[in-house]
Amino acid sequence: MTQDLRKPLDGIRVVDLTRVLSGPFCSMLLGDMGAEVIKVEPPEGGDPVRQQGGMQDGLSWYFASFNRNKKSVTLNLRDAGDMALLRQLIEGADVLVENYRPGVLDKMGLDATTLEQLNPRLVTCSINGFGSSGPYADRPAFDFITQAMSGFMSVNGGADQPPLRSGQPITDLLAGLYAAYGAVNALRARELNGRGQQVESAMMNGILSFMAYLASEHLLTGEIPARTGNDHPLVAPYGLFRARDGEVAVAASNDMVLRRFMRCLELEHLLEDPRFDENAKRTARRNELNTLIDGRMVQDTQAAWIERLNAAGVPSGRVQNLAEALRDPQVMAQEMVIDVPHPGRGAVRMLGFPVKLSETPCEAHLPAPELGQHNDEILGPLRGLQGQS
Amino acid sequence: MTQDLRKPLDGIRVVDLTRVLSGPFCSMLLGDMGAEVIKVEPPEGGDPVRQQGGMQDGLSWYFASFNRNKKSVTLNLRDAGDMALLRQLIEGADVLVENYRPGVLDKMGLDATTLEQLNPRLVTCSINGFGSSGPYADRPAFDFITQAMSGFMSVNGGADQPPLRSGQPITDLLAGLYAAYGAVNALRARELNGRGQQVESAMMNGILSFMAYLASEHLLTGEIPARTGNDHPLVAPYGLFRARDGEVAVAASNDMVLRRFMRCLELEHLLEDPRFDENAKRTARRNELNTLIDGRMVQDTQAAWIERLNAAGVPSGRVQNLAEALRDPQVMAQEMVIDVPHPGRGAVRMLGFPVKLSETPCEAHLPAPELGQHNDEILGPLRGLQGQS
Repeated sequence: MTQDLRKPLDGIRVVDLTRVLSGPFCSMLLGDMGAEVIKVEPPEGGDPVRQQGGMQDGLSWYFASFNRNKKSVTLNLRDAGDMALLRQLIEGADVLVENYRPGVLDKMGLDATTLEQLNPRLVTCSINGFGSSGPYADRPAFDFITQAMSGFMSVNGGADQPPLRSGQPITDLLAGLYAAYGAVNALRARELNGRGQQVESAMMNGILSFMAYLASEHLLTGEIPARTGNDHPLVAPYGLFRARDGEVAVAASNDMVLRRFMRCLELEHLLEDPRFDENAKRTARRNELNTLIDGRMVQDTQAAWIERLNAAGVPSGRVQNLAEALRDPQVMAQEMVIDVPHPGRGAVRMLGFPVKLSETPCEAHLPAPELGQHNDEILGPLRGLQGQS
Repeated sequence: MTQDLRKPLDGIRVVDLTRVLSGPFCSMLLGDMGAEVIKVEPPEGGDPVRQQGGMQDGLSWYFASFNRNKKSVTLNLRDAGDMALLRQLIEGADVLVENYRPGVLDKMGLDATTLEQLNPRLVTCSINGFGSSGPYADRPAFDFITQAMSGFMSVNGGADQPPLRSGQPITDLLAGLYAAYGAVNALRARELNGRGQQVESAMMNGILSFMAYLASEHLLTGEIPARTGNDHPLVAPYGLFRARDGEVAVAASNDMVLRRFMRCLELEHLLEDPRFDENAKRTARRNELNTLIDGRMVQDTQAAWIERLNAAGVPSGRVQNLAEALRDPQVMAQEMVIDVPHPGRGAVRMLGFPVKLSETPCEAHLPAPELGQHNDEILGPLRGLQGQS
């Protein structure tokens, strides 16, 4: 029965001018939901990621994993004839995604007015570093720079350590995810209003939006949040504790969980101890409290504590490296690692789909395309039209 | 003209059973796009975040910033009469959002079959820690634990430092954002297929999806990515460099940018130097190269370098703390800090909208609600119906 249902973005055609990371992540998210994504690449080499990272049989697994569910056409955007083809593609598209620096699309002759004339129902989705207005609109951007400027690095790191970037390319990916959210919303607005609009997602704005309660507290009090390593600034006990054979991450997130935790440790009496009977005292005497907890934790193994604590309703687990995480039985059960067959190149193993839909699940219906693989299918009919006109 | 256009989620009613962070973030994102969000809270105290963080005139700014664009009704979900009202609410809703542990909704009598009978067009959006199937489905979850288990912490931190959590509650927020993306897609699938479905977003799956090229490389080679601090594992020069009066973040992300950077430094000859003429050599001799770069950078100020480098097309900026970031002229120009008037409580300053839509921009059309503020408006008509039946 699921077979007969249409995917959320079935019937939506996306013209994808993006490269590298933030933009291809956005268009992949749209493709995963069933959109037809047409990746437009320069004829010489295509998206630079095709040549980046580890290769198997000439295929970059980094490229393969960010470009599933897409078709590839090659166009030389410095050539008038190819630009005419691009305009035809845009006339028939629902969404245009681009991650050029602001102004580049205009210089290519695809300013907002022209795009609206070509296709009033078009949703144009732009991903950039700082947004297309404001003093830094023209600056080149890169994940690391927006991590630095946004305040992210100022709160990431140990208390006595320098500001630290995230190990993940977080501002690229967030900008891509927000762009996909914006694009699907703009498609819905189009159904209500009969016309498209411009969607913009900037790396700096996306990562700022994740400042959450750190921003609320700062805006109210003026206090500047500090780096606190693995300590939660407002909650204790919280962090990594030492079992006999390794560390256990525990978060006693509220009073109920705290009581369960202390009961498991047979340290419930500490909650009546005048040194620890309020959260403010526990955070102030964090080291003293952690030492008492470690004294109990060391009496049993990591695995035993994790099972016991979770059974008692205390969130806990261990720090896993990426190899351990990707073969974790829960991660396997959630199909967060999938094998996508690439004809002639074997299967590529990649991350699965983070959003689960019960009736129209995301699928890898297309492997990442060869450069220009869909030129005939997509551009052929347009060339026919050009010949006739 | 914009005034007459309908917002993307205009006409969509969301029943919101969530509390604290991941779920309220999801429903806020839906409200920002124009959905009518009805936050269902327990009569005694409501969402615990109402009592968390700094307060002004009795209002938590943390609560205010995550609950804009929502209405509040109070229902005691242990009371049969109130549960009947909730079922009526669900009958008239488009989306139900919940962030209980898997199975809790079932125990409340709202299993998937019952929900489908109540409202076949309902999109049920569930946010949880590990997903509703698999060996950890029943475990309690918390941001810190999924950061530890997902591999995030294993790649976040200095090379000689322990695994480190993110300073932002990243897995909560990512799960909320993916859930919102899933919900809007499911609404579109409903238009195509005539019926709702279940959407699920797990904190663990969301953060895993951000492993990006780290996962691709690991899955291809079996190598386990390490913590590298502010060094990019594959690119040099990249990092924080020492100008006369402070550090400058620079990312020489590709060969073209690298050449521009070295030209600005008047060190272009190093690219012909046999020690540094390939990226592999530069990453291997990273410290030696960085010392040469620092030797030039120290000759001028942070501000001068940032202006010069950006003008030359080299992404660069400085590490800002949250106070500096939120008063940055670019951040102000992008309206990423907004003031939302709360009647009787003054204005609450909070983060703005990360997705910019040109024709139907996100707006704070409602301040965060008082507990039960919309009982009469929302529940009154339902009580009337109950009286009649």
